[in-house]
Amino acid sequence: MPEIRSNPVTGDWVIIATERARRPEEFAQKKQKAVLPAFAPECPFCPGNEDKTPAEKFRVAAPGGGWMVRSVPNRYAALTPEGEVERHVDGFRTFLSGVGLHEVIVETPAHNLTMALLPVGHLEHVLAAYRHRLCAFYDDPRIAHVIVFKNYGEAAGTSLIHPHSQIVGMPVLPGQLRARLEEAVRHWGDKGECLYCRSLQEELNDGGRVIAENASFAAFVPYAALSPFHVWIFPKRHCAYFGDVSDSEVADLAVLLREVLARLYVGLEDPDYNFVIRSLSPQEGAVKYFHWYISLIPRVTKSAGFELGTGMFINTSLPERSAEFLRGVTLSV
Amino acid sequence: MPEIRSNPVTGDWVIIATERARRPEEFAQKKQKAVLPAFAPECPFCPGNEDKTPAEKFRVAAPGGGWMVRSVPNRYAALTPEGEVERHVDGFRTFLSGVGLHEVIVETPAHNLTMALLPVGHLEHVLAAYRHRLCAFYDDPRIAHVIVFKNYGEAAGTSLIHPHSQIVGMPVLPGQLRARLEEAVRHWGDKGECLYCRSLQEELNDGGRVIAENASFAAFVPYAALSPFHVWIFPKRHCAYFGDVSDSEVADLAVLLREVLARLYVGLEDPDYNFVIRSLSPQEGAVKYFHWYISLIPRVTKSAGFELGTGMFINTSLPERSAEFLRGVTLSV
Repeated sequence: MPEIRSNPVTGDWVIIATERARRPEEFAQKKQKAVLPAFAPECPFCPGNEDKTPAEKFRVAAPGGGWMVRSVPNRYAALTPEGEVERHVDGFRTFLSGVGLHEVIVETPAHNLTMALLPVGHLEHVLAAYRHRLCAFYDDPRIAHVIVFKNYGEAAGTSLIHPHSQIVGMPVLPGQLRARLEEAVRHWGDKGECLYCRSLQEELNDGGRVIAENASFAAFVPYAALSPFHVWIFPKRHCAYFGDVSDSEVADLAVLLREVLARLYVGLEDPDYNFVIRSLSPQEGAVKYFHWYISLIPRVTKSAGFELGTGMFINTSLPERSAEFLRGVTLSV
Repeated sequence: MPEIRSNPVTGDWVIIATERARRPEEFAQKKQKAVLPAFAPECPFCPGNEDKTPAEKFRVAAPGGGWMVRSVPNRYAALTPEGEVERHVDGFRTFLSGVGLHEVIVETPAHNLTMALLPVGHLEHVLAAYRHRLCAFYDDPRIAHVIVFKNYGEAAGTSLIHPHSQIVGMPVLPGQLRARLEEAVRHWGDKGECLYCRSLQEELNDGGRVIAENASFAAFVPYAALSPFHVWIFPKRHCAYFGDVSDSEVADLAVLLREVLARLYVGLEDPDYNFVIRSLSPQEGAVKYFHWYISLIPRVTKSAGFELGTGMFINTSLPERSAEFLRGVTLSV
């Protein structure tokens, strides 16, 4: 029989459609991906083409010259960096001037690498770049909320091949985050504990959905996973602001994220995916009720009218089986 | 400059990315769709194959014998129709047995028709079938909420060609609906008016985003449309329950929905789309704060990490221009 599981973090229900569940290996990408060159002359993110992007905001220099990671303003930014945030309230309607920050973080000079195959030490530089840009964005007093995310592959909404992530700073608090905060505050008010710490503790105690863990982080398929192989990576130390992670935590995160990505890469044959870092602002870093984390969604199924019309998800894979499958992947790298 | 518009119904922000806006015609589907036969021997929804579906629950008989519209249980149902709703609360975790109803509404015997080309009189039968099944689902005391939706085309999450819609009855209230209800109640409490009636009135007064209207309904691209050509169809009569629409309203809705679909079909070259009917239950039909409506999303863009991580949308088309474009489409049919 299917199960309808409650996701305590989102406050919503997820249908685990066991009757139409598919075996984990059936979610593997079947399409052949193109073989790519290490350098593409027309790619704006390849070395030598630095003048094709707007002026660089940050770089991790390579020991022998050149760069390992760069962050540059997005040429097709959703929001504009110039101007003041003006709020127009006209009777029933409200709108703000679309002011904000939007950068692309180029993860490596190699055009044809994927994050799942990056050396762990290099991934550490990428994560440290996320942290640097996140903190810098919040230094701008116009910014209310910052989101770091990665779109990998066409099904995940990108057509740009060169490995990259994005960071957007906006002058409003997204409604989804407001709702999560309200749930978190309510739980903390009711139970006197952080909803996220408790969720993590439950996952670690149960163990059946854990994929991997180390001293600072745990990766698991959540109890009420929204879609097949949906993964959460939680810091073990309670902290609401990603900008507050220490260097040693960044190193531990690189190891764990790399392992999760490698397990997906091998087990599901290089699936498209999105991941996002959910974090509050520096001023909220020490609040007791919220916890920053990474949510990773392999795009192996499509959302459709049911999801649009209800906000609920139908997951055609049992979270316990997804986790077991990922744990069982043999990694040679 | 981009604008960040507030959507009063969802309570969330939408970024209208004017800087990277595309011209309306650029959203047209470029892919050639296959030419299909009117009858496909292996299709479970084609006439003559009625025994390939579970036992029919409802049909609109054709005058000369046979059927025009059928509703049958979904062979790959997300929820199971047998059993009681059991709620298991285990310390931190809550889950329900996955009991519910799930039918497929076969819209026409013709394998290769699309709803945009259905005769209006036939579409009226389809909408009346939606109403019939919605009411029947709510007769089941286990059902808390019912959603009617259509997935058209691969980008909208279906691989089944034969024209069909779906209806799901579930034993829980989706979190998204709970949030909408809370917004609606708050607005009604604050302002003493239905948020949806007010939104409709504002759209009709402004006129710039209206696509078409008749005595009972108006179709418009909402002020804070989530994506290009996102359309709302609102009944002009305040009513929270779709099951309460009258026969003459069903007839008017068929005319308007048909016109919107035809404008999309011609203007965007047969785009994939989803639509959903948002409605409360019969017991809530007369509440003053909620209003049933149809939301239609052409799948001409992909959601990605930003949308997953914030719940907000970036719309790369100005709603006013989308509406103007759809109004300007020449319909010969």
